[in-house]
This record gives sequence, structure tokens and C-alpha cells, in this order.
Amino acid sequence: MEKQTIYEKALKCHEEWKGKLSVELKMPLNDKNDLSLAYTPGVAEPCRVINKDVSKAYDYTWKGNSVAVVTDGTAVLGLGDIGPEAGLPVMEGKCVLFKNFGGINAVPICLNTKDPKEIIAVCKAIAPTFGGINLEDISAPRCVEIERTLINELNIPVFHDDQHGTSIVVTAALQNALKLVHKQKENITVVISGVGAAGSSIIKMLKNFGVKRIYGFGRNGVIRRSEYDKYDFLKREIADMTNEENENLTLKEALEKADVFIGVSAPNLLNCKMVENMKRRPIVFALANPEPEIPYEEAVKAGAIVGTGRSDYPNQINNVLAFPGLFRGALDVRATKINDEMKLAASMAIASLVSDDELNENYIIPSVFDKRVSEAVSAAVAKAAKDSGVAR
Amino acid sequence: MEKQTIYEKALKCHEEWKGKLSVELKMPLNDKNDLSLAYTPGVAEPCRVINKDVSKAYDYTWKGNSVAVVTDGTAVLGLGDIGPEAGLPVMEGKCVLFKNFGGINAVPICLNTKDPKEIIAVCKAIAPTFGGINLEDISAPRCVEIERTLINELNIPVFHDDQHGTSIVVTAALQNALKLVHKQKENITVVISGVGAAGSSIIKMLKNFGVKRIYGFGRNGVIRRSEYDKYDFLKREIADMTNEENENLTLKEALEKADVFIGVSAPNLLNCKMVENMKRRPIVFALANPEPEIPYEEAVKAGAIVGTGRSDYPNQINNVLAFPGLFRGALDVRATKINDEMKLAASMAIASLVSDDELNENYIIPSVFDKRVSEAVSAAVAKAAKDSGVAR
Repeated sequence: MEKQTIYEKALKCHEEWKGKLSVELKMPLNDKNDLSLAYTPGVAEPCRVINKDVSKAYDYTWKGNSVAVVTDGTAVLGLGDIGPEAGLPVMEGKCVLFKNFGGINAVPICLNTKDPKEIIAVCKAIAPTFGGINLEDISAPRCVEIERTLINELNIPVFHDDQHGTSIVVTAALQNALKLVHKQKENITVVISGVGAAGSSIIKMLKNFGVKRIYGFGRNGVIRRSEYDKYDFLKREIADMTNEENENLTLKEALEKADVFIGVSAPNLLNCKMVENMKRRPIVFALANPEPEIPYEEAVKAGAIVGTGRSDYPNQINNVLAFPGLFRGALDVRATKINDEMKLAASMAIASLVSDDELNENYIIPSVFDKRVSEAVSAAVAKAAKDSGVAR
Repeated sequence: MEKQTIYEKALKCHEEWKGKLSVELKMPLNDKNDLSLAYTPGVAEPCRVINKDVSKAYDYTWKGNSVAVVTDGTAVLGLGDIGPEAGLPVMEGKCVLFKNFGGINAVPICLNTKDPKEIIAVCKAIAPTFGGINLEDISAPRCVEIERTLINELNIPVFHDDQHGTSIVVTAALQNALKLVHKQKENITVVISGVGAAGSSIIKMLKNFGVKRIYGFGRNGVIRRSEYDKYDFLKREIADMTNEENENLTLKEALEKADVFIGVSAPNLLNCKMVENMKRRPIVFALANPEPEIPYEEAVKAGAIVGTGRSDYPNQINNVLAFPGLFRGALDVRATKINDEMKLAASMAIASLVSDDELNENYIIPSVFDKRVSEAVSAAVAKAAKDSGVAR
């Protein structure tokens, strides 16, 4: 479909749906007997039991299979700060994905505040109701501060998908692309354009994964230690992990040294020539959405293995490969956190679904609709949670 | 079923259900085309439209048919302050009733704070997501303060069911009972035992309805103006509306003057003798649950028309007759508030479903499972909202 047609059709669908979610009963409610079990007086008994042992909420309520999808509407899709009501269609969509791909009851919570302290307070206040909190579309660097505080202060998983969802899937795709070009993660150089929520998390995860040399580019050029004083806490962390020799490079110059380009930034930053000048058999993940950092066709023509965020090209790098199975696995073992071990396990599980026989330039990452994904991810994540001691 | 059996069975059911609610998709999600409409890129269009005009959230999201059921777990059923997790089975049950009787998507929100200021802040923060907020099982007098502040500061209906749900149904039952005994509301004397959330709201609604003479009894006896200095703000309001001559009466003495007794307090405060000493053809609504202020059989034997909160006796006075239709009507006209006119309209609508032909001592109020109730209530409430200028 043409873009304009999709927008028109989507608007019409949303008007028909009047919400993409429905809260349904899991039991019959036809007579007084049903009522006395689901509600008073019978309901008093699970209340009493949970009152004595709070962990029993996982046995007698929806807590163990529910997630709040929380936003303040400040960084919705590529639309920016559009407010909580305007963010609601996206949050409902996210909840649809949670159910469809992870079997999880997810509820949108769009907040009428942008104050990180208040967002933290609300999440802490509503936490007893849910088995996990998925933060969504909150602008950087506030999102990082909010997520870190909540991870420390809550005993349920808190996960900012815009940060880690992307980094998990990027790392999965990179593993397979490197196989294809016969390069070792320890020896490659990676250029990352975009040092916000997604970019900073990708850098951390790639370091964690074993990549040694990374250059990060923000709106004002390459991140380097000598500019430390001008940076917020997040860019400082990136400066500590990248550009070890404090080089002052343009994006073009950095690409000449690079095996891999990962863009989570803005349309049309790269041209054919820049990709051609990368190292032998370049890998280009141009994830700006809907318009990538370089058009798919051009990057392919320039000789790259290409991934985008779009569903109309091969190798779609889409968070939905990660977060439903990740939360499914975390909830299955009643995890208190989603830690680095679980994220890396998710990434490996996604990558492993593309067998060596199948692996090719147009198939480095499984399809969003590959039904094996959520199961593989959740099993790997549950195991990693147990092994790393955050299951209960 | 025996009480103990119900508790055991309810616990077993809750363990099987693992939550009484399921969040389901309202649209198919089978392929990339579905995904592009429900999620990116199509979803951007309703986002943009709502960003320009926030009221469009009612057209393109679930807002117009969703309610948050918010508690802090401080006054759950008769169990008291059992905490947010232990309150979750009741809140889920409430959400089940919202869907079953009102067709409304309701979501439990159990809060890990008892501070009224924080509860208010959380409700204000999450308000963009929902078409209404139902406060539940929050202890008095904090519940009144919280509800009033939110009604003033939010533009969606906020309703504390423990206060007004009961008063709406009590007023409905009283209208019909008075017909039966041929008494006029202006001429009767009413004794109310219990001056917390429910009792105070009943007093206000009965005054609003047209009842002139009321005595209110708390744990320390009759409410009277001369004790003003000892009272919290809620009891002071009651003192202003009741016991005009500042009489110092015992419950027994007050009942001798009374046509109607309404108990929202504690088991076994009344005996047969006290009911016999009430005015001719007394009306007794003994709503303490599960053990009423006087056993049903005794009150009947003493000559009263009797209502209780229990499903195993005639004339069950149950909030579920009111709140689903009330919110249904409010949401249908996108009301900004639930005001006194709407509450009274709900009450009249409930009462009107018992025709003069059917009206008798065992049938003064329709059954919870009478399918006409929600429709009649919602229509009356929607009309009252329009007439009183809170529809939009």
C-alpha cells in the first residue's frame, strides 16, 4: 500500500475499532453462584491469603501475566512530544503486540506528567498491580534515569523497550551478518548514528557482546572524551565506551574505518559512496523509521548487507522480535529484573532461529510472524534469569 | 453453599483462573498488512489527529469505554487495610462486573501508597488513558477528600462507589418500600447506623431526595452539633444535615421515632424488640456484610420490610445495580463528571423497574441479573448528564 493510503485506512480502522483492546472475563458470570465465587463473599479468601503472603498474588490474580505499558508521550514514534492522549494509539498497539506475540495482558498507561520524579512515583505506586513495567516512547536521557531508578527500587522487571528492544534485535542481526561475511566481533569497527535511547543501549550491548571499537555520532558529530563537559550523563557514558583515541572524525571519515553502520537517527545521512568506502562487505542497519539513513536499494547497490526497520524490505529489525518473549520468559519465572544476561540470551535465541543453511543476505533475522521466536526467546530468557539469580 | 465451602471453592477457582481478566485484541493481527494498520506506520495517523485535538481520543482509542478501578487497599470488603496486592482479587472482580453488566473495559490499579496527595497525583497522572475513574475500597474520610479533589481537577468522571453506589441503590429501594407502606419521604424519620463512606453519602442523597429528618449513628453514638469539635470534616457535614434539635439519643431511643433504619455498620446492633418499637410498618435495610445489623428472619418477624446486602435473601441492595449503568451512561455522552442529578436519575431508574403490580415486601428492588437494569440506568444517566450540562 502507498503510505498515504495506509494512513487513511489506519485512521478509518481506528475509528471503527474505538480502541484496539478489550478487557474480557476469564470465567462465566451467569448467576448468583458465579458471582459469589468471582466476587463477594468468595473473593475474600484469596484476599486473606495474599494479605498473609504477598507473593501469592502471582497465584491468585492476573499479576503474574500482566504488564503496564507506560509512556509520557514525549517521544512517540518519530512524532516527538505529542502528549499522553496522542500516544495512546501507539500504546494500545504495543499492548496488542504483547498479547499476540507473548500471550501477556498489557495495559496502556499514558501519563499526564513529564517530570521524571513523578513518572517514577506513579510507576512505583501502580507496581503492585502488574508483573512488569514496559516503559515506552519516553525521551532521552530522561528515559534512562527513570528506568535505572525503577530497576533499583522495584522488585518486578522494568524495561524501556526503545533502549533495549532495539539493541537486542540489532545484536541478533549483527551476529548472523558477521557469520555471513566471516568477520569476528572482536575485530570489527562499528559506527553508530544516534546516541539517544536506542543508540546508547546498542553501544552498551555491543560492548557487552564483545565488540571492541565503536564510534558514536550525535547531532553535533562524533562523541569524544574531550567534549565531556558539554555532555549529559548518557553521552558521558558513551564517551567512556567509544572512540578510545578521542579522534575528531566526520561520519564520512569514520565510515571509511567501519565494517558496520547502525543508524537509529534520521533519514538520508548516508549515500552510496559512503557505503562503498566502508571496509570489505559492509553491514548497514539503517533503522530510522519510516525513512532510513540510506534507502534500502542504494545500500544494497553499494554492496552492503542491509537491515531496516521496515516491513516492506528483507531483514526487518523490529523490537517485536524481542519484547514479547523477553517479558514472557521473565514473567514465567517471576523474575525481579530483566538483566544483561537475559537480554543477551534473548539476542542469541533470536539469532539462532536462522540456521546456517538458511542464512543469506536477505535472511539474517527471523520474520516478525515466525511463531518460533517468542517461544525460543522466552525459554532462553527464563533460563538466563534462573542462572543469574533473578528468578523466584 | 456453606460459607466455608464458598471460601474454599473461591480460592481454588482463583488459582485456576490466575486472574479474572484477559486483555484481548479487537482486530486481526495475522500479517504485515494488519500490523501496518494497528501499529507502525499506520498508527501514526490517529496519533497526529489526536495531537491536534485531544478530544479525538474518544474516537480513535479505548478511552471512551475504559475505566480505572483504583484502590489503595485500605478498606477492602470487611477485611480492612490489607494492602494493594491483597486488594487485587476484589478489584479484578469489580472490573468483571463493569464488563459483564456495563460492557466497559475496566482495569484494576492497586496503589502502593496511602497518602491522599499521592493517590490524587497518580489518578491525575493516569487520567489521559481512561474515560473515568472508579475509586474503590479507600478508607474514610480520606476517600471523600480524594474524590472531591479529583472531581474538581479532572475532566473525566470520578466516582467512589463505596460512597455513592450504595446510596443510589438504597435510595431506589427506599422509594419503592415507601410506596408499599404508603408513606411520604417528606414525613419520615430515618436512622442511619454507620457514618463512614457509605453512610455519609446515603445521608446526603436522602436529603437531596427530599427526606427531612435523619439521625446518624457512629461508633460513639448519635452525631450531634454539640460534639462538633470532636469530629472530622465528614462528621461535621453530617452534623449539619442531621439531628436538627441536637438530641442526645441512644440507638434504641432513636429507633422509637423512626420509620426507616439503614445500617452500613456492624453485625447484630439491632434486636427484634427494637424493630417492633419502630413506627408502624418499619423499613429495615441491614447492609453490614456478610452479617447484617439484624438477621433477616428476625427483622421480618418483627414486622419490617427488609433489605440486606446478601444474595441469599430477597431485596438484595447491591451496588452492581448502579455503577455499571451509571458509568455506561456517563461514558456514552463523554460526561466530564458524575453529578447529583445523574446519581438521582440512576436511583429513580432502578426503582422504576419494579412495577406497581409486582411491588411487594419481597420485591422492592430488581435482581442483580435483571438485564433491563444497566440499560435503564445508563439511559437515565445519559439524559441527566445532558440536561445538567456535563455531557460533551
